[in-house]
Amino acid sequence: MIGVIGGMGPAATADFLNKVIEETPAEHDADHVPLLISNDPRIPARPAAILSGGESPLPRLLDIRNKLLAAGATALVMPCNTAHYWYDDLLHSCPVPFISIVECNALEALRLAGPGATIGVAGTRATLASGLFDRTLARHGLQTVRPTDAEFEHSLLPAIAAVKAGRIAHAGALVEATLIGMAERGASHILLACTELPLALAAGGPAGGAPCIDATRTLARATVAFWRAQAAR
Amino acid sequence: MIGVIGGMGPAATADFLNKVIEETPAEHDADHVPLLISNDPRIPARPAAILSGGESPLPRLLDIRNKLLAAGATALVMPCNTAHYWYDDLLHSCPVPFISIVECNALEALRLAGPGATIGVAGTRATLASGLFDRTLARHGLQTVRPTDAEFEHSLLPAIAAVKAGRIAHAGALVEATLIGMAERGASHILLACTELPLALAAGGPAGGAPCIDATRTLARATVAFWRAQAAR
Repeated sequence: MIGVIGGMGPAATADFLNKVIEETPAEHDADHVPLLISNDPRIPARPAAILSGGESPLPRLLDIRNKLLAAGATALVMPCNTAHYWYDDLLHSCPVPFISIVECNALEALRLAGPGATIGVAGTRATLASGLFDRTLARHGLQTVRPTDAEFEHSLLPAIAAVKAGRIAHAGALVEATLIGMAERGASHILLACTELPLALAAGGPAGGAPCIDATRTLARATVAFWRAQAAR
Repeated sequence: MIGVIGGMGPAATADFLNKVIEETPAEHDADHVPLLISNDPRIPARPAAILSGGESPLPRLLDIRNKLLAAGATALVMPCNTAHYWYDDLLHSCPVPFISIVECNALEALRLAGPGATIGVAGTRATLASGLFDRTLARHGLQTVRPTDAEFEHSLLPAIAAVKAGRIAHAGALVEATLIGMAERGASHILLACTELPLALAAGGPAGGAPCIDATRTLARATVAFWRAQAAR
């Protein structure tokens, strides 16, 4: 059973669950991946903790991790890009594999865009400030392009807030300016490195700019592949 | 935190999660209902256990219930109508409230259709054989109409199987004959008392026949209302 540290936000966790189901070749209930999902949104805000010294979510995340392990999780995933800021801390003394959304998406970007390509990383300010994706993509020989301040203020952050508040139809149109801008600045592919963004784009129709990589779907695929390999052992 | 005994099947659990989110008035992550969801499909088949002496799912359901309680669930729900056959057993020695999908939908049917009305109950053969909905609706002064054998064979059961296998687009058209038939036999409202059926209908456009009651959405609403009352205490 795979433990899911979710609730950041709940719509992103639901999207992850939907995508795990979509990515599973299944005829019957029993063919599906067993998941234990903590969809508990009472986790201190990640951006405030990273950017402005707000309360750290780490104690709460460790508590959720430990509950999932106690209930029998044989692997862990966390469908929230920003929270991977604490990935190393969560991996510490963790007795089971923890599939990283950053690592599996760096591999996916390399597969799709090829060595040396430039990838636009669309995420929260906190995800980008931490340098998490830049470092991991660089380790795989990929360059990165970031959103500009104007794109953050007028496009990405309002889109993410709109999804969290359930105004999904409105969110798609908001994202597009960032995607077009990053493509103009050289991105061959754009990694949607915030779990709210695929939801925004799904509602907004096909995006302008470069082709997008849905970080949530990549994590869902990696989760299904991991479970099938673990179950086959 | 509300514990969810899910995975019967996974698409129905995802649908329940989506509907809990839709039914929650929320501006921020923290406004959402904390859920701990067991989406473990390795539960012996409910229809076979009820109809033909197959392995009982009760030990597995009790095990899941106990894991959710140990992890801190302060109430329980189970988004699967058929599995409510074991509701009384699951309630036994259960230290927290367990919101019944049967009870909350009987109340919803009464609210929508009024005293003495006739409700069509569309569910698995096992759900109907157990008499669960008939008895509960009767206690609220409502009559019931059931699907015919032909409707089971050619409409309801193939639609449910199609949803479980991910062929949702195909499932909607399959259900419609049952809904029209039950309306012709006097149903003023039709209770979709199998968590796969709302998914089938959502894919198939507006149904013919009488207005439908989505048992999953009713349970989602009851869950949100319960959490808000519990949190306010």
